[in-house]
Amino acid sequence: MTALEKLRAANRHGKYICVGLDTDPAKIPGFLSNEKNPVLEFNKRIIDATKDLAAAYKINFAFYERDGYNGIRNLKDSLSFIPENLLTIADAKRGDIGNTASMYAKSVFEFFGVDSVTVNPYMGGDSVQPFLASVDKLVFMLALTSNPGSADFEKLKLNDGSMVYQKVIKKVNEWNVNENCGIVFGATQSDELRTNMTAIKNLPVLLPGIGAQGGSLKDVVKIFMEAGRDDFLVNVSRGILYKSNGEDFADAAREELEKLNNQIKVIKEV
Amino acid sequence: MTALEKLRAANRHGKYICVGLDTDPAKIPGFLSNEKNPVLEFNKRIIDATKDLAAAYKINFAFYERDGYNGIRNLKDSLSFIPENLLTIADAKRGDIGNTASMYAKSVFEFFGVDSVTVNPYMGGDSVQPFLASVDKLVFMLALTSNPGSADFEKLKLNDGSMVYQKVIKKVNEWNVNENCGIVFGATQSDELRTNMTAIKNLPVLLPGIGAQGGSLKDVVKIFMEAGRDDFLVNVSRGILYKSNGEDFADAAREELEKLNNQIKVIKEV
Repeated sequence: MTALEKLRAANRHGKYICVGLDTDPAKIPGFLSNEKNPVLEFNKRIIDATKDLAAAYKINFAFYERDGYNGIRNLKDSLSFIPENLLTIADAKRGDIGNTASMYAKSVFEFFGVDSVTVNPYMGGDSVQPFLASVDKLVFMLALTSNPGSADFEKLKLNDGSMVYQKVIKKVNEWNVNENCGIVFGATQSDELRTNMTAIKNLPVLLPGIGAQGGSLKDVVKIFMEAGRDDFLVNVSRGILYKSNGEDFADAAREELEKLNNQIKVIKEV
Repeated sequence: MTALEKLRAANRHGKYICVGLDTDPAKIPGFLSNEKNPVLEFNKRIIDATKDLAAAYKINFAFYERDGYNGIRNLKDSLSFIPENLLTIADAKRGDIGNTASMYAKSVFEFFGVDSVTVNPYMGGDSVQPFLASVDKLVFMLALTSNPGSADFEKLKLNDGSMVYQKVIKKVNEWNVNENCGIVFGATQSDELRTNMTAIKNLPVLLPGIGAQGGSLKDVVKIFMEAGRDDFLVNVSRGILYKSNGEDFADAAREELEKLNNQIKVIKEV
């Protein structure tokens, strides 16, 4: 299955929540410190408890890179717990000139073996092409991000009245000749999302920013429903991972995911 | 010594060339394949042959990440060959929301222990602050890059007549309260560099793009001289690393670096 097929299969089954594995050793339940590898054990139990309800898993490279070799090993080993039919996203936000970008593409697609990756488009076309060369993958390019700093550059007004991130959306559509492009759009920016649905066309959208960052699940799902669009992923990390700090953390994660899935179902039925 | 002190010490000694360790296993001399670890041996010999002439070393993370665990180990072990008094730059082009960026900062500054890092500023202020919190380090933010894709977003015209990358330069100056900011400016963009020297103020500048990418060493050095500026680094990777494909590769790298240092000396004396 291509990455896009995996995404569409999940969406067809009413699954839109991407579980974000931003696993912070300082935040996982204390009792896991008795385990040989607390982070890996935590991820294994979270994935086992959620894999029949999750649309996808997004693994945040920074949280593993901070631990050097061991972190890289945990990252790769955690990916092995994810069922083959579910989309895996390397949240790595890479981007560099062509010959360097091709090395980053090798790292995420060959060494880690993920289905998709987040890419920072600031450096332009030749910095994303080496990722797009893998036609079976999905490349989610940052358009408008969920954080306050998105106002600094992404929202700068251009001389034609549009904003920088809108040019990114336009370019990503041009680059989408193999249907392997997507965009990242912050769920905290629902007004902007509504305004740009037509411009986004049929690009798959990854939406971070629900929960800890303040984005509303209801708002973003409604926007997609109104636009007749059914291929998007809402990422939730902290809101699922750290729902309980006790021995029931994996069950609590599952319950939270179930609740979110039901909320989406209700919104879709309205 | 802080990162800025290391940079200034090198510049005071007439050293401006940063050796880029973009070490590609497919490009290193064939005879090294007999070594237990060809990449590490290559880097060790290059560093040993150039360390008294180099201003700094920039290590390109992508070239190591592509090899997974072993690559990460080679990256860290290669850094150990670089003398303590020379600036080390993690060319990682990271950038993410605050809590994630702080993990990337831990990775580069604590696990790898480098003096400085390249950061992609697209996501704005809160995505770079976790790096800037390390006041003894240097954070080189991408302004205008050396590649053709720089025309796609970096050079977009804003409604006030300036370009996106010029706003980046302006913001970086605002963020420079602890004198630990720098910028990346492509050596291939010498006309733009000349135009922006006043706006760049006293930010240290890292200039990639000489050699394989077509930038002119003479042009950029002259621009800095004319502006009375003496704190910049010109990165050269392929032009030094792969000067010879034989057993003399390290001597050839040293000779090339010596030649570049002499070219700069001549330009400065004119």
